[in-house]
Amino acid sequence: MESRNYANELELDYLFHPQSLAIIGLSSDSNRMNIGQEYLQALLSFGYKGKIYPVGLGGGEIFGIKIYPSIKDIPDTVDYVISAIPAVHTIPLIADCAGKGVKAIQIFTAGFSEIEDEEGGNLQAQLVANAKKTGIRIIGPNCFGLYCPKIGLTFPGGIPDGGDTKSGSVGFISQSGGNGAFVIREGVARGIYFSKVISYGNACDLDEIDFLEYLAHDPETKIITSYIEGIKEGRKFIQTLREAAKLKPVIICKGGTSDSGARAAASHTGSMAGGGVIWSSLLKQMGALQVNSMEELLDIVLLFMHVVPPKGRNTAIIGVGGGASVQAADVCSNAGLVVPALPAEIRRKLKECYTSEVGGSFRNPVDMYWGRRDLFQETIRMVASCEQIDLLIIHAGFTLGLSQEQEQVRQITEDIISLKDEIHKCTVVVLDSIWVPESKKATIETQRVLNNAGFPFYFSVSQAANALSKFIQYHQVANM
Amino acid sequence: MESRNYANELELDYLFHPQSLAIIGLSSDSNRMNIGQEYLQALLSFGYKGKIYPVGLGGGEIFGIKIYPSIKDIPDTVDYVISAIPAVHTIPLIADCAGKGVKAIQIFTAGFSEIEDEEGGNLQAQLVANAKKTGIRIIGPNCFGLYCPKIGLTFPGGIPDGGDTKSGSVGFISQSGGNGAFVIREGVARGIYFSKVISYGNACDLDEIDFLEYLAHDPETKIITSYIEGIKEGRKFIQTLREAAKLKPVIICKGGTSDSGARAAASHTGSMAGGGVIWSSLLKQMGALQVNSMEELLDIVLLFMHVVPPKGRNTAIIGVGGGASVQAADVCSNAGLVVPALPAEIRRKLKECYTSEVGGSFRNPVDMYWGRRDLFQETIRMVASCEQIDLLIIHAGFTLGLSQEQEQVRQITEDIISLKDEIHKCTVVVLDSIWVPESKKATIETQRVLNNAGFPFYFSVSQAANALSKFIQYHQVANM
Repeated sequence: MESRNYANELELDYLFHPQSLAIIGLSSDSNRMNIGQEYLQALLSFGYKGKIYPVGLGGGEIFGIKIYPSIKDIPDTVDYVISAIPAVHTIPLIADCAGKGVKAIQIFTAGFSEIEDEEGGNLQAQLVANAKKTGIRIIGPNCFGLYCPKIGLTFPGGIPDGGDTKSGSVGFISQSGGNGAFVIREGVARGIYFSKVISYGNACDLDEIDFLEYLAHDPETKIITSYIEGIKEGRKFIQTLREAAKLKPVIICKGGTSDSGARAAASHTGSMAGGGVIWSSLLKQMGALQVNSMEELLDIVLLFMHVVPPKGRNTAIIGVGGGASVQAADVCSNAGLVVPALPAEIRRKLKECYTSEVGGSFRNPVDMYWGRRDLFQETIRMVASCEQIDLLIIHAGFTLGLSQEQEQVRQITEDIISLKDEIHKCTVVVLDSIWVPESKKATIETQRVLNNAGFPFYFSVSQAANALSKFIQYHQVANM
Repeated sequence: MESRNYANELELDYLFHPQSLAIIGLSSDSNRMNIGQEYLQALLSFGYKGKIYPVGLGGGEIFGIKIYPSIKDIPDTVDYVISAIPAVHTIPLIADCAGKGVKAIQIFTAGFSEIEDEEGGNLQAQLVANAKKTGIRIIGPNCFGLYCPKIGLTFPGGIPDGGDTKSGSVGFISQSGGNGAFVIREGVARGIYFSKVISYGNACDLDEIDFLEYLAHDPETKIITSYIEGIKEGRKFIQTLREAAKLKPVIICKGGTSDSGARAAASHTGSMAGGGVIWSSLLKQMGALQVNSMEELLDIVLLFMHVVPPKGRNTAIIGVGGGASVQAADVCSNAGLVVPALPAEIRRKLKECYTSEVGGSFRNPVDMYWGRRDLFQETIRMVASCEQIDLLIIHAGFTLGLSQEQEQVRQITEDIISLKDEIHKCTVVVLDSIWVPESKKATIETQRVLNNAGFPFYFSVSQAANALSKFIQYHQVANM
């Protein structure tokens, strides 16, 4: 690859704020949904604030909007182009775009360097050469493109359920479009909002380095997250990552760490995935936090959003149920947290409180009786004030299928939130659920209330313990 | 502990078929729910087929049923007693029960050997001594007792959501009552039905050995599962486990494998938990399958219920989405499965099929276009017929929040089920979902349909891969 001219990080801001865009590849037949139509529909329903010009050879209308036979026919400047036409037709498109003053083209179409045939690689090389001549930047090919809720820019699948258009502080750079759509929908459902989401696919021009540099300096982005399959310029990537990680937390999920995953990555985005072990140590050295899945990525984002880093790994588990407590202790220990016995003094105090109640164990996990709301709050206060404890996991281990279980959890949730100003230690909440609709629905409501109140919520102890352990490790490395 | 007189395995059958039972510790005040009332309510609503006699000092009525002041006042024989009175009052109860011909007492009450005070240990010793004199067997103390849907026997929390009373082929022996209630509710929600569930707590008399022996010979039980915190008689346990594992699959979750978990186990059921490593190798040697959580236990039960053991670890992943495929391959590899490239011949055939479609990768994972139902079925057929492949994971990686996604999954589900008689290899289905109510609801419906049709269903690729890997390992060890 030739030497590259690094865009100033803020220079790329125009990508996320086009005042007008054209979608190439539309037909007026609304009964036969194609990708171009899906883009148009997504932008309309997400409320894109600029002008949209559909383009398609046949002309006509779609959703009541005029289709121009060619981009050249549009009586306006066009900042940004979304192309969903076959790979081979993409090449001549570049020159037409240049004529209209287009600054960037996002190419959805696949069939470039990721396919096994030589043809794909040749097409991609032509694409890059043409773009270079004109100065137009390319996002993709083989990608979903950009999501910027502030101006209503999005892609098919990239709309939170319920149509929530709120903007947030998390940026996501993804080589996979599916993962882009996933984090938007799952993230918003869990109270995580994004500044920008970028699906960049084969990265023939703009790549993870450009976007990493951009997000590192984007004032709207406080936390950088990423799904990467492969990089092409190792040295520059490392340098950029190191700089970015100094400015903001950078959380990266590396796809293709196994041999078969790497083979799949080559088919997916034409990436050379590189060995898993090398990546792990590299990311750690650069000060980035590596995760193994999109769920884990979101789990850890919640911690960066809401809690102060714990000083150590000493964890108190406040839970319900003997077996659940035993298993929670095992799970936390296996995840690298420490579950120390509480000091005798606190155990004595707790025992005094619960003297009239049946059962209960106060060593840690604190397995207590949930019926008494005053005791519940007092227990949390006491445990949180314990010097030896660095963080709290409140494990409301209910199955939540029944209305009385749901009522109890509503009370617990209220009680936890009302302690917000009193607990100054990292505190997360776990609520198990079972696969019945009422249980999942109640869990969804509870997690939203707690996440919005600043208490990271997890669906299992192991999910919480794993996220906390990585979060603590990240801060320990950073402080070394 | 003294030498024990081992009950004949079938002798214990009477425990699960009492014709009459008494619940000790009821009051007529239905506004102040206590544990005794909860037992009564559970038995009534689950449709217990024998006679129920509530017992409480104050007499009167509860839910329209007469309360006897003492068990001695009941004008009938009583086979089985459920006791929920304070620990100290349990001791004199034994003699009264003996007078009525009671065969077994299940003691819910805690406060015996699991508490820190000497008093608890003394009480438990007295309990055992008194029972021994009378020949009455004890379940517990500190436990929920028995679930046997065939006669409507259950405990509080031990009713599947929706009130499903179906009996099944899975037995569960649990030292934790909460885990007993969990598997009943979660299991039935996932299409797993139980013959018997046993929560046995402190195991002062009847213990995991007795119940393991019983389930091993119980003709209604085809798969034995268990949650154990600690054992008291190692040699006898090992011998019993070895015998049981020769007859049926035995799946065990060992609680208290970590130091802090072991400490919690001591507080919970007075168990000496023993080292995690020792347990792992012991269970393996005895031919049992060890799991780390209740979810994993159910995940693996589904495989024993529905699929033939794969001959090897070669896995084909049929999925959707490039990023999802890369990650699925990584996850399977990390779980110990092998994801080999499909033979060139099959790749060529698949490519021919999909020639007119956009995208797709056919190496394995097979990342294909889901829109064409005929191609979907043909793809599964082709991959399943491939000699090198031992098992299939169909990863319908949809987020399922939208109605079109749900419709697509309904079609896929139908198509998979209609191939049932054609695919003779272990095939499981994975469907991701997001935390929005519609998504979870659709997933719940889909999993039920697929599990009922004999296709084990999982909520993530990692859950499926992990269960499959352990399932294969179990059969490899068994065949050695």
